Amino acid sequence: MTTLDSILAGKYPAKAHARRVAERLQASGYGRRGVIYLEAQKTRLIEDNDEAMPFRQRRPFFYLSGCPLPDSYLIYNIGSDELTLFIPPIDPENVIWSGLPMSVAEALRLYDVDNVMLTPEVNATLASIASGDGGKAVAFAITGQISEEIKLQGFFETNTSILNGVIGDTRVVKDGYEIALLRKANDISAKAHIAAIKASQTAVNEREIEAAFIAACIANGARDQAYHPIVACGQNGATLHYGGNDADLADPVTKQKKPSVLIDAGAEYRTYCADITRVFPLGGKFTLEARQVYQIVLQMQMETIAMLKEGVQWEDVHTHAHRVAIQGLRKLGILRGPEDELFDKRISVAFFPHGLGHYLGMDTHDTGGNPNYGDNDSMFKYLRVRGCLPAGSVITVEPGIYFCRFIIKPFLESHETSKYIDTEVLERYWNVGGVRIEDNVHITKHGYENLTTAPKAFEEVEVLASSRSTHA
Amino acid sequence: MTTLDSILAGKYPAKAHARRVAERLQASGYGRRGVIYLEAQKTRLIEDNDEAMPFRQRRPFFYLSGCPLPDSYLIYNIGSDELTLFIPPIDPENVIWSGLPMSVAEALRLYDVDNVMLTPEVNATLASIASGDGGKAVAFAITGQISEEIKLQGFFETNTSILNGVIGDTRVVKDGYEIALLRKANDISAKAHIAAIKASQTAVNEREIEAAFIAACIANGARDQAYHPIVACGQNGATLHYGGNDADLADPVTKQKKPSVLIDAGAEYRTYCADITRVFPLGGKFTLEARQVYQIVLQMQMETIAMLKEGVQWEDVHTHAHRVAIQGLRKLGILRGPEDELFDKRISVAFFPHGLGHYLGMDTHDTGGNPNYGDNDSMFKYLRVRGCLPAGSVITVEPGIYFCRFIIKPFLESHETSKYIDTEVLERYWNVGGVRIEDNVHITKHGYENLTTAPKAFEEVEVLASSRSTHA
Repeated sequence: MTTLDSILAGKYPAKAHARRVAERLQASGYGRRGVIYLEAQKTRLIEDNDEAMPFRQRRPFFYLSGCPLPDSYLIYNIGSDELTLFIPPIDPENVIWSGLPMSVAEALRLYDVDNVMLTPEVNATLASIASGDGGKAVAFAITGQISEEIKLQGFFETNTSILNGVIGDTRVVKDGYEIALLRKANDISAKAHIAAIKASQTAVNEREIEAAFIAACIANGARDQAYHPIVACGQNGATLHYGGNDADLADPVTKQKKPSVLIDAGAEYRTYCADITRVFPLGGKFTLEARQVYQIVLQMQMETIAMLKEGVQWEDVHTHAHRVAIQGLRKLGILRGPEDELFDKRISVAFFPHGLGHYLGMDTHDTGGNPNYGDNDSMFKYLRVRGCLPAGSVITVEPGIYFCRFIIKPFLESHETSKYIDTEVLERYWNVGGVRIEDNVHITKHGYENLTTAPKAFEEVEVLASSRSTHA
Repeated sequence: MTTLDSILAGKYPAKAHARRVAERLQASGYGRRGVIYLEAQKTRLIEDNDEAMPFRQRRPFFYLSGCPLPDSYLIYNIGSDELTLFIPPIDPENVIWSGLPMSVAEALRLYDVDNVMLTPEVNATLASIASGDGGKAVAFAITGQISEEIKLQGFFETNTSILNGVIGDTRVVKDGYEIALLRKANDISAKAHIAAIKASQTAVNEREIEAAFIAACIANGARDQAYHPIVACGQNGATLHYGGNDADLADPVTKQKKPSVLIDAGAEYRTYCADITRVFPLGGKFTLEARQVYQIVLQMQMETIAMLKEGVQWEDVHTHAHRVAIQGLRKLGILRGPEDELFDKRISVAFFPHGLGHYLGMDTHDTGGNPNYGDNDSMFKYLRVRGCLPAGSVITVEPGIYFCRFIIKPFLESHETSKYIDTEVLERYWNVGGVRIEDNVHITKHGYENLTTAPKAFEEVEVLASSRSTHA
């Protein structure tokens, strides 16, 4: 058993999470009398259909329980520090179809909770807590996540406005177990990225590369994708959220293979996400232009990762990526004019329109980033994290350079910005599509730990993508 | 291009479907003045998350449009026989992320509709139809599928109670294009079943077999599964809806491989489903007991398929499967007593507890089957189709024999039924788990067409599952 697997063989630290959430509630001015009440996602049928919808556990519930079961409830009694999980009872009709459900004893063995009871007991438990605590107990719950049959009326107050945000903020700083889960999701995804790059040697379309990625995730223990994979060859890579994954790798007319493929895909492992982007050449060798752009993006990524440690201001890191992009694009001759002027006029936004990264955890775009999508400054509008990074946070570092006509065109048409872009040089780069390189980085007190092991060095990627690797 | 692909290169016959639905409305006593109004599924975000839920098009909308786009609307003007599709307009903010959406011209080229307009025009179109037809036009729509902003008030009457059922009944009889789609879904799934069986030669757990199945579907053009795959080794195959797909293929203690694997899995191709079950041995050779059970189930399936043609009563076919099961289980010595008595006492339900099959189409459990889950007769309670099969319907034929303790135990404990089961003989069969063999069959005027090409002959399956096939 690897170190990682032996950490993960232990229990998910649900109780510690419940305590941290309660402490944050207190820090927000709330007392210690009351309960945190959370519900698992329900089993839901597809509309007009007798089959269940794909199940995705509610994150707040998982965070305080570690339990992936649907139709369950959780009560944390803040005053007595007691965490109780309620799981569904046996439905004899269902046993015939699905076998025995999890037992109370098994749940107690698996999850870091003090008690396990069956769901019909939840209202009695709530009532008994409400009647204690001098009648002053508050029930903290989440709007829209309180079933009709649940009775919170006995509490002095039901507060449904603060808990979701408090849990979201608490989730920013990960503990060791969560880092292990994110690392595991990353390890599986790295294997899948390698499988996908190797599959490109014989694949004829994007689908076959995606299939190799997903198969490697499932075979290695991650049934679900963290998000819809992007497998984009050639100019498809310039569409930031391309999801067609259905194009042929060769041009239908010239039969020439597209220069490269961008894969942005990550596994979900026990509700924790990986989010990794790699770009590799088709046929084993990058074109000159793709190689030039790849090297700028890699430089953007390596320099910004090197800046990371507790307390760094994310806007500064993002800004630095733009600086490196401007230097690189000036060197290629795509941009012209003084570096500071290009920066001040936000010209690099034409090629790097999105934010440098986002928090990562149980959600791909994890909670607590405080973005400001209303920002009028185009360089910061889409930045999903604002402010200083705490130790224990995990953030994606995903600079990119894209040759996307929809995005660049307004810059070429505006009298104010067109002079900074050399359209003749630019002409040679449209075929590159887009290059993005994305790792998942754990912020520590004195620096960082890069959780992503998928290869990104230029030569390594070329070897994997060329048929040489099959004989390796 | 194959014949199948050339059929499917044409348009999905949405207009013919709209006419058939309107005719059925008329046959139910409604006039020809009014509209059929349908909505596509909306783009919906995952709860507490900024990412879209997995998208599944609404079937009634697809049936009358052939259009897979979210957030679209459809109006069929019954009187003028005019079919109009409304697709979302360009959202400039979204173009940056996702590229240009489908244009009106492109939609008109792709879909079998008379007009394509943008969604902001839907209310004006409704109003203009409502004000015509002498003010007597009826709007037929589906409860819960009418967006807030949609104005049906101008119509003489809005009927939301009949349309869903009428469309469901119309869908039972498939046209040639739909049969081609079902055949395509079956062809892809057959490739995936073969890939899965071959993967079992080296796989160490159920996951790796499932991964091979899903990868083959995606690579061959079917991104979605028709339903959650079941990959069940050994006794897991006795749980009818097993979905864990995570067990090791070898017993953890004895290290012996389980005797066989049951895969129940099918691709969804352009909203049409395949639903195929195969059972194969691990290590290339069935055990004696698994082979005996396999042969009974195959006999059940072949004899019942041979009965199929227009007008056959599905209850009779189902009943025949039970007769074959009883004969087979008597021969093995598991059941004892006169055949008719075993049948009358419903003893075979202990081993074959589910229905013989269900309609198949855009839903895996397709519409129009009129089941009676309240039936007190245990042999028919779970039968999803009742009555006579029309030509053009497609039905699954999926007999099975299971050794499931939860299901058999009550028969062994009841004084009335225990005498019919020889527990000593039964003891040898628990390890078999379950055997189900499932094909998808198109009912025709004089017989049937089996759409499922995945191998099921005993010898063929053994060869695929043995390492011999890698050299084939």
